[in-house]
Amino acid sequence: MEGGTRLSIRAIEDLARKALEAAGTDPDNAAPLARAVAQAERDGIPSHGLAYVPVYCEHVRCGKVDGRAEPTVGRPRPGLVRVDAATGFAHPAIDLGFKVLIPLARAQGVAMLGVVNSYNCGVLGHHVERLAEAGLVGLGFTNAPASIAPVGGARPVLGTNPFALALPDGAGSWRLLVDQSASVVAKSEAMARARSGEPVPEGWVLGTDGHPVTAPEAVLRGTMAPAGGPKGVGQALLVETMAALLTGATLGLHASPFSGTEGGPPRTGQGFVAFDPEAMAGAGFFAGLRDLAGAIEGQQGARLPGARRKAARARADAEGVLVPDRLLDRLKP
Amino acid sequence: MEGGTRLSIRAIEDLARKALEAAGTDPDNAAPLARAVAQAERDGIPSHGLAYVPVYCEHVRCGKVDGRAEPTVGRPRPGLVRVDAATGFAHPAIDLGFKVLIPLARAQGVAMLGVVNSYNCGVLGHHVERLAEAGLVGLGFTNAPASIAPVGGARPVLGTNPFALALPDGAGSWRLLVDQSASVVAKSEAMARARSGEPVPEGWVLGTDGHPVTAPEAVLRGTMAPAGGPKGVGQALLVETMAALLTGATLGLHASPFSGTEGGPPRTGQGFVAFDPEAMAGAGFFAGLRDLAGAIEGQQGARLPGARRKAARARADAEGVLVPDRLLDRLKP
Repeated sequence: MEGGTRLSIRAIEDLARKALEAAGTDPDNAAPLARAVAQAERDGIPSHGLAYVPVYCEHVRCGKVDGRAEPTVGRPRPGLVRVDAATGFAHPAIDLGFKVLIPLARAQGVAMLGVVNSYNCGVLGHHVERLAEAGLVGLGFTNAPASIAPVGGARPVLGTNPFALALPDGAGSWRLLVDQSASVVAKSEAMARARSGEPVPEGWVLGTDGHPVTAPEAVLRGTMAPAGGPKGVGQALLVETMAALLTGATLGLHASPFSGTEGGPPRTGQGFVAFDPEAMAGAGFFAGLRDLAGAIEGQQGARLPGARRKAARARADAEGVLVPDRLLDRLKP
Repeated sequence: MEGGTRLSIRAIEDLARKALEAAGTDPDNAAPLARAVAQAERDGIPSHGLAYVPVYCEHVRCGKVDGRAEPTVGRPRPGLVRVDAATGFAHPAIDLGFKVLIPLARAQGVAMLGVVNSYNCGVLGHHVERLAEAGLVGLGFTNAPASIAPVGGARPVLGTNPFALALPDGAGSWRLLVDQSASVVAKSEAMARARSGEPVPEGWVLGTDGHPVTAPEAVLRGTMAPAGGPKGVGQALLVETMAALLTGATLGLHASPFSGTEGGPPRTGQGFVAFDPEAMAGAGFFAGLRDLAGAIEGQQGARLPGARRKAARARADAEGVLVPDRLLDRLKP
């Protein structure tokens, strides 16, 4: 077991912000990203926590992302908001868009935000949570470089494209959070195993003939298996439509990789649709949510989606998070 | 092989309309439902074709659906349309809502229709196709009586809740159609096998302990396995939110069955969100769709979702559809 240091969420955020700024990210862009990094550590999702910060810094330095970008907002239609992230980080662009989206969704009943010329948005659920904290139903979509093949094919055409849904509790927090990719497992998980020379479990990755592969060299050349087979491809198509086709962002098919330093900015996109929960249903929305959540939580062994993140947060707030010393060394300026 | 008669799509529609009217459905309500029945036969989906008409007729007679209902439309917010189906068929209620939704989505960029006090809407894809034929991106959701258990639980809380997505081709038709339930297979398929005393394939149905079952008696008491495990439950939650929580329709948890004559109207719901494809993306929408569709269709063995229905339609238009004589006998007044 390697050595580690227990840090508070606040200390993690400071550490992330300083590293991002040292790499050339301006303070306005570093702040929301550092908050997201700290939130991922708090959630028990270390892959999107401090471990990702050296990659963000490398991407600022090589120009895959512009640390000094100034996102701009447009209003193409009464129900739409569009933000051009200008090849900067997704987080400040989404923040800017939400300032317009939230009051608009309350007024219109439904409104959509599209973000283009963007980058990996980290944990998608973090963004829709904030819509739920503002009292809205938040639905989010983000696309990624192609790694899933179509049904019957073997060449990748769609990313592992997650969607996320957050439902408000009516008291400033969220009650239920779905955050799921279209693939059986995260691409990073399968590729990390293969690069270390380990075989991956059957069913995670499909080979160039479209059949499951487990050997490392075949995994590295393969495509990510869609969850539920054709239904995972269906989810990926829905997400590609909402995050890229409708917004005008770059398709996963054409996007440069999120990893490494090659290919310039990926210019992928995000789409968010926000709904006023009571505009059509009145008090029925919260009554229905109470019944549904109760029917799930009332079953032994069942839990509401998002419950694990909530529990991790309570633990992290009380105890802090153990960060490997090797990672802390990498984050020193 | 039992005997059958080859009928044109037009003849199938006439047959369905006459049977529905003879059961007590008024002409305005029977017409859109008869069109949907004919469309299902044309698509090669006989489960929602003429075979369903005796059930519709029985449901009109027993009061599970009101054949003489008059749906009413409301406009709770600038971006929202809400239709009360008044326990009538879903089809005329959706038609009424689309008359408002289509011009609204063009003007606003995005708009939503919620339908409450509704009924099974048949093939969900048929409805969103019409949004795409009107030049919009159409996204649809419909809920159903609970038959899927939550992750870690064993009692049903969500229906097999499908979503459907249709993308326009920009020339009055649709280019891509996703239409998928949240379960591994349709509930009707599993239950029909079990009732005939046949075991069902492993992975279709979960028993009262949450583990897969195949024996007929266990299947009849079981829950439908979600496609992709937890991710199928996530889809079902998304659909329940869009079709019931946001619209104010009855949850799958509380809805009376779609089959049999017990329990009165199910009062389930539908949600549709329509988007102007070019409002944010400009010409990028159709350029992107062309690239994506090309990358799928260019792979040997791969096909665009919806391609099978299109092929079935072309065949049915040329040759008609073979309808079993036993079914024709049941439809005689």
